[in-house]
Formats: sequence, C-alpha cells, structure tokens
Amino acid sequence: MKLATYKDGSRDGQLVVVSRDLSTAHYATGVAARMQQALDDWGFISPQLQDLYETLNGGKARHAFPFDPKQCMAPLPRAYQWADGSAYINHVELVRLARNSEVPANYYTEPLMYQGGSDDLLGPCDEAVFGDEAWGIDFEAEVAVVTGDVPMGCTPEQALDGVRLLMLANDWSLRNLIPDELAKNFGFVQSKPATAFSPVAVTTDECAGAWVGGKLGLTVQSQWNGRTVGMCDAGQEMTFHFGQLIAHLCKTRNVRAGSIVGSGTVSNRAVEKDGRKDWVRGYSCIAEKRAIETILDGKPATGYMKFGDTIRIEAKGRDGQSVFGAIEQTVSSLRT
Amino acid sequence: MKLATYKDGSRDGQLVVVSRDLSTAHYATGVAARMQQALDDWGFISPQLQDLYETLNGGKARHAFPFDPKQCMAPLPRAYQWADGSAYINHVELVRLARNSEVPANYYTEPLMYQGGSDDLLGPCDEAVFGDEAWGIDFEAEVAVVTGDVPMGCTPEQALDGVRLLMLANDWSLRNLIPDELAKNFGFVQSKPATAFSPVAVTTDECAGAWVGGKLGLTVQSQWNGRTVGMCDAGQEMTFHFGQLIAHLCKTRNVRAGSIVGSGTVSNRAVEKDGRKDWVRGYSCIAEKRAIETILDGKPATGYMKFGDTIRIEAKGRDGQSVFGAIEQTVSSLRT
Repeated sequence: MKLATYKDGSRDGQLVVVSRDLSTAHYATGVAARMQQALDDWGFISPQLQDLYETLNGGKARHAFPFDPKQCMAPLPRAYQWADGSAYINHVELVRLARNSEVPANYYTEPLMYQGGSDDLLGPCDEAVFGDEAWGIDFEAEVAVVTGDVPMGCTPEQALDGVRLLMLANDWSLRNLIPDELAKNFGFVQSKPATAFSPVAVTTDECAGAWVGGKLGLTVQSQWNGRTVGMCDAGQEMTFHFGQLIAHLCKTRNVRAGSIVGSGTVSNRAVEKDGRKDWVRGYSCIAEKRAIETILDGKPATGYMKFGDTIRIEAKGRDGQSVFGAIEQTVSSLRT
Repeated sequence: MKLATYKDGSRDGQLVVVSRDLSTAHYATGVAARMQQALDDWGFISPQLQDLYETLNGGKARHAFPFDPKQCMAPLPRAYQWADGSAYINHVELVRLARNSEVPANYYTEPLMYQGGSDDLLGPCDEAVFGDEAWGIDFEAEVAVVTGDVPMGCTPEQALDGVRLLMLANDWSLRNLIPDELAKNFGFVQSKPATAFSPVAVTTDECAGAWVGGKLGLTVQSQWNGRTVGMCDAGQEMTFHFGQLIAHLCKTRNVRAGSIVGSGTVSNRAVEKDGRKDWVRGYSCIAEKRAIETILDGKPATGYMKFGDTIRIEAKGRDGQSVFGAIEQTVSSLRT
C-alpha cells in the first residue's frame, strides 16, 4: 500500500492512504491519525490500512479525494531517527579519486553511516531554505526505508524483516561546510540540513520484482532545473543492502519503530568507451559530477545550486508509473 | 517545576509532575498525557503544569503518590533529536595531550557537536546493556537541555530563550569502537549507544542562582561502583554555553520542540600542587581518567566498566537537595 501525511497545521499532519496510481487519497482517521501511530502498532493497524487501500484502488472509498503532493508533509514529518548510509561505494570511489586519496579497505566490508537530524523533515514540495549560496548547496537523491522495531545485535537478514516502508529522500548537503566539519571528526551537523522525502511511502510489495535482497532495482531520476542529470539504478551497485545498513546501526543499540535509514547517494559506475570512461547514468548529486570533472579535466566545472534552482527526484516502477510521487523542491534564501 | 515520565507499558509513558523535594508525584493526565505533548504546546500547557506543581508542593494535590525514580523512563523516552556537544574544552585537551596531539585552534571558537540516536533513550534506572565488555564501556556524566522551537540562523542569545528544561545525561560510550569509527570520518554510530537521562527534567527557575548565562553552576557527582570518582563543576569551565550549542545546531536548520542538546562530559582543569598537576575534581568519564594516567605515568591504569558495574550520577542544588534525582544504572550483558 501507499501512505502519505497531509498538512493540517499540526506538527505531525494527518495520515492518508493513497491509491496505487497516486490519483486519489483517503484520510485514514478512523484507523490511525498519524504515520508514527501506524508504525508503533503496525501489526494491528497495517491490515486495516491495507483494507482501505484496496477499497480506494477499487474506486469504492466513499470519501476519496484527488491526491495532491503539494499538500504532503514528509511521510514522517518528524522522526525519532534518521541514519543515512553511504551504500554506493562508487560514489565514495569517485570523490576519493578526484582528490587522489585511496578508499580505505574497510569501506568495502563495513557500511559508512552518519546520524542525521530528524526533528524537522521536509515535505516533497517544501522550499529548501538556506542562509548562503556560498555554503555549496547540493541535492542527494537516495532511497530510504522506515523500520519497525529491530533489536540490538540482530543479523542483516533479521534486520531486513524490519523494513516497513520505502521512500525516496533528498539529503540536502552543504558541500563547502563539510571539510571543516569533518576535520573536527564528529561527523556532520551543519553540513547536513533538513532532509526532504517523497510524497508517499510504500510497502515493499508495491515494488514487487524490483525489491530484491534488500535493494531497490529501480531507476532514480534527478532533474536539475528541468534537465535530467541522473538516471541511476538504485539496485545492482548498492554495496550494502538495507538489512546490512540496519544491522550496522543495531550492533550496539535497539532501533525503534519509525526509524528512517537511507542508502546514501545512488551512484553507478562508468562504462568504458574508446578507452575513456563515460558515466552514462549521470549523477544523483552535484559533488559527484564535480568529482568526475576533476578526474577527467583536472578541475570541477559545474557549480552548486543557486537560489531559485529546482530539483526533481522520482522513480518509476517497471510499469512506467511513478512509485513514490516526485520530490520537487526550489532552493530559496533564508530571510532573517 | 519538575517533570518526569512514568512507565506505563507504552512507548512514551505518562507525564507526571514531581514535587520539588522529589518525594511525591502526580499524574498530569488532565493537562498533558506525554512529555512531548507539553513541549509541543508549551505556552499553553506549562502554566497548567506549574499550577499542579504548586498544589503538589503545598501538599494539596489530591491524588499524589510517593515518587519512585525506578518507575521513570527518560523524561523524553524517545526524542526527535539528541545533539551532544563537547563543551568542556578541558576534556578535549586532556584526551589530546595524552596522545600527544594538539587541540585544533577552531575547537576554542566553535563548538564540537555530534548527532546522536534518540529513538530509544534509557530511563535513569534502566540497565545499560552491551554485547561485549571488550568494546570499552564508559559512562559520561553530562548536563542536557530540552528545547522548544528555535529557528534557523538564530543568535546564541535567542537560542538560550529556547531552553525549556534541564536534565542530567549519561552518554554511554564504547571507547574501543571509537577509533575505527572516527577514522571513517562520519562521526559516531556504533560507539555511542543509547543515552540515559535523570529521573526528572526541571525548568531553569529550579536552578535559580546556579543557572547563569546558559551554564549550570552545580557539581555533578559520579560514583562508580559506589566510590565517588567525580565532583565536577558544570558551570565555570564550560567553554560554550547552551545558547551557543543550540545556535551552532541552528545555523543551517530549524530546531524543533523536544530536541535534546547535551554539554558533553563535564570536566575541570587540574590545580598545580608542588609543581605537579592534580585533578582534584576527579572525572566524569573513565576515558579522562585514563588520559590523566597516561599524561602522568605514560600509560592508562584504570580499565573500563565490566558487566555488573554500577554508575550513579547526581547533582545537588545549593540547598543540598538532589535537583534531578540520580541516574543509577548497572552494566549488563546482552543475552542473544
């Protein structure tokens, strides 16, 4: 099924069930008012949401209304956890190659992951507000999962059973703040501002055929100012599947219902063409494009985003239909 | 006023108001069922809680009962944000000195801060469960604040107005997992497991005289296996006050109600005695004791915690009374 959270002026919004084709929606009020409530008691609540979903898809839901992504908050407008992996090692390799540094050996055996802020997540069409263009504003197109309760010390296979929902994420990054922050050795705080999520979160059965072994084998499309810059396959080249990412997080603590775990920037390897590398799939963040430019030409040519720029991130199913709806954001300036 | 969250089998527990002397409590059910609910609507709800608090202190609350810290969850059993500073530069200096590395200059001008997990916070008397003693189990006694809504780009002074509640924290750390994790450059995930908090969270007026300029001038006492190892002053030597810590976090994002911001390990400078340094205040984490031993004797002598060890963390007010109640935890082994 497909679920979304509609704006209602409150901090958590209203849970709605959305039809498979994203054309109609229905408030889930009688079943659960908020997304977190459904996740807290998934075994009991999800079958009731599924019933409503089937009625809605059959065109028989009595109070259905046209679904409007602009009315959406993030599926979880605030979450108790947002832990973002960097599971496409190709992304790391590119960035490292561009600065002539090797990828540490353990990057291939253990996931990279950072803890993000989750008190103020952005809806799919919310403006992305930043204080300064000079911070190096960049999008990052990712796949993310929402978990149920996953106990400390579980295996990747057990962790995979804890996946409740799939979404897309735009993990906004402030590239020029990253070097100083990482030099301080405590991870990202200022350089990873509020993350945005797709209009709907879907159960894994909505991606049947594409959701295999904890990886989502769909193409994540990124359009920057209307131009397609990325058509990256989220499946095959994911170095660590979501079960591995969640298990990494669970090694020393319980992960509780409603935790969001991200894949990191979706990234695909170059193909060789006439002895030259060609990144035919494009890119899911500008930093990667700049790394490619540096590798090829010695320096980056593409600048980061400017106020007024737009980004659109979407993934289509094998039937050609949008699975999650599109993240469509405009970069704008903080007026203080 | 003083607030706590009582266990009731649910994920968020029940909000209770606790008397100033921590002897009695009263469910706040008629006002707000959960702590987060009070924080979400603080302007409206806090005066009603204050009324109940005054009635309780006057011995006139009709359904008061004896307060039992063992029934407490963390004041916020799960939170939308837990960002922990490292605001006592003396702690950083000691650790660096022990390994012969300099403190980077910007550590004195910009707070160090890491984003922690907040989906599964521990109550004051909850067992601290770990998979392996070899991970280097360590406590960290800290002061923490709970915020209201604080907007992006605010000043430290504005941020200070956003402080709603004060607590103590035990920021459990797995020292032997830290080097590998920090070498990966993405901050802490596995090496910072679930954090524990004091039985009660208090408004700043409960610390009148001690809460000055965003610092809490009280002594934080740490007892390890019943022996007092730290009597550290949390006030004067805090390099960055809580307004500065929150403003650091707010530079690129909004901070929303119910965010927890920590001070980092409370730490005091040595005094010189006969030409030799003496850390008369003791320590608020074992790593610091080991750093001191390394500076004095070339190597650490104190081991980390073992299964069965206990830690007690408390702060007394200027009247000698416990302000927050005590964190009292036992280290125990994960049985898988």
